[in-house]
Amino acid sequence: MYTLYYSPGTASMVVHLALLEIGAPYQLELVDFDKKAQRDPTYLKLNPNGLVPTLVIDGQPRVESAALLTMLAERHPEAGLMPPAGTPERELWQQWVVYLSNTLMSAYRLWFYPEELGNEEHPPAVRAALQRKIESVWDHLDAHLAAHGPYLLGAQFSGADLLLTMLMRWSRNMPRPVTEWPALKNLANLVRARPSWKKLYELEGLTEW
Amino acid sequence: MYTLYYSPGTASMVVHLALLEIGAPYQLELVDFDKKAQRDPTYLKLNPNGLVPTLVIDGQPRVESAALLTMLAERHPEAGLMPPAGTPERELWQQWVVYLSNTLMSAYRLWFYPEELGNEEHPPAVRAALQRKIESVWDHLDAHLAAHGPYLLGAQFSGADLLLTMLMRWSRNMPRPVTEWPALKNLANLVRARPSWKKLYELEGLTEW
Repeated sequence: MYTLYYSPGTASMVVHLALLEIGAPYQLELVDFDKKAQRDPTYLKLNPNGLVPTLVIDGQPRVESAALLTMLAERHPEAGLMPPAGTPERELWQQWVVYLSNTLMSAYRLWFYPEELGNEEHPPAVRAALQRKIESVWDHLDAHLAAHGPYLLGAQFSGADLLLTMLMRWSRNMPRPVTEWPALKNLANLVRARPSWKKLYELEGLTEW
Repeated sequence: MYTLYYSPGTASMVVHLALLEIGAPYQLELVDFDKKAQRDPTYLKLNPNGLVPTLVIDGQPRVESAALLTMLAERHPEAGLMPPAGTPERELWQQWVVYLSNTLMSAYRLWFYPEELGNEEHPPAVRAALQRKIESVWDHLDAHLAAHGPYLLGAQFSGADLLLTMLMRWSRNMPRPVTEWPALKNLANLVRARPSWKKLYELEGLTEW
């Protein structure tokens, strides 16, 4: 049994999607950002950094969405979220998951939380640099998918595509949303057509792409 | 056979240390930053982002140091760099490796490369925010190690400690180097006493801690 502490549309999305793909029983616990519930002392005991998601596995709170995706994929090999050990595809998967997490998640964090760089709002040069950083990742990924897609690992869907599609979704109000990159748009459409994506929208009450 | 493209003291260190811990045969290829060799077209074919490390595994170039550490640990379970699948310790390991990579590596990247935020030098507020970010990670890790150390996973050394010690080393010229946090200093000393660390200093020609 799993318990997922989540907030709609945030980094908990990839973990929620993985749970739905797996079909394992789980409980959902909303962390209400409007009430600053992520700073509540009870929640901080589970997640000392005050972030979502937290996934309680066998009574142990675990954190970091890319690590949680890996844990769930390893626990439920039948769901095919991660290629089996000892295959080159598994190494590619590990490479993509770390790359997405290091480059995009950290750049988005600064984009959405200017206070992490000591400002209420980013000066234009910083904003432009972060936008450039994110767009350079889209350039790189779009070229990869155009040559080797439609999924990150080629013909085969995997959990890395869930992570990427969550991250793509966060660009929807940026100056150049990711849907302007054709191979990425195509991947997003494939993932959005999955039953897990539709179910997640229902459960988390999401409407906007 | 492995080939590691490295630059002394950079993010390739953790991969080099893992190779030494494993004792597997490997070749070293210096990527000479003074000659901007990381932007050389031949190197960019291996690593399109122009970063080190790249590890060529069975003829395939692989990137992202945290992913490379994981790949090597999975390929050589006898080296004990990562706990076995199906154990709670493995999940903790995955969590720490992603956490270190996401928080510290991305903050250091901005600290050392202000141009990534569109400035030749960081304004004082940005510099202070990045310093605060890195120091808050030391606070978190030091408290964890004081309670559950001496290693990240407790009594047992693992590859996550190699990653952490490399990241600690990068703070040596910061306003408050990590050695001011006692449990972290203790972990650094344990890792620096390992034969792999000493051998790496010889091979990469490093002198400063």
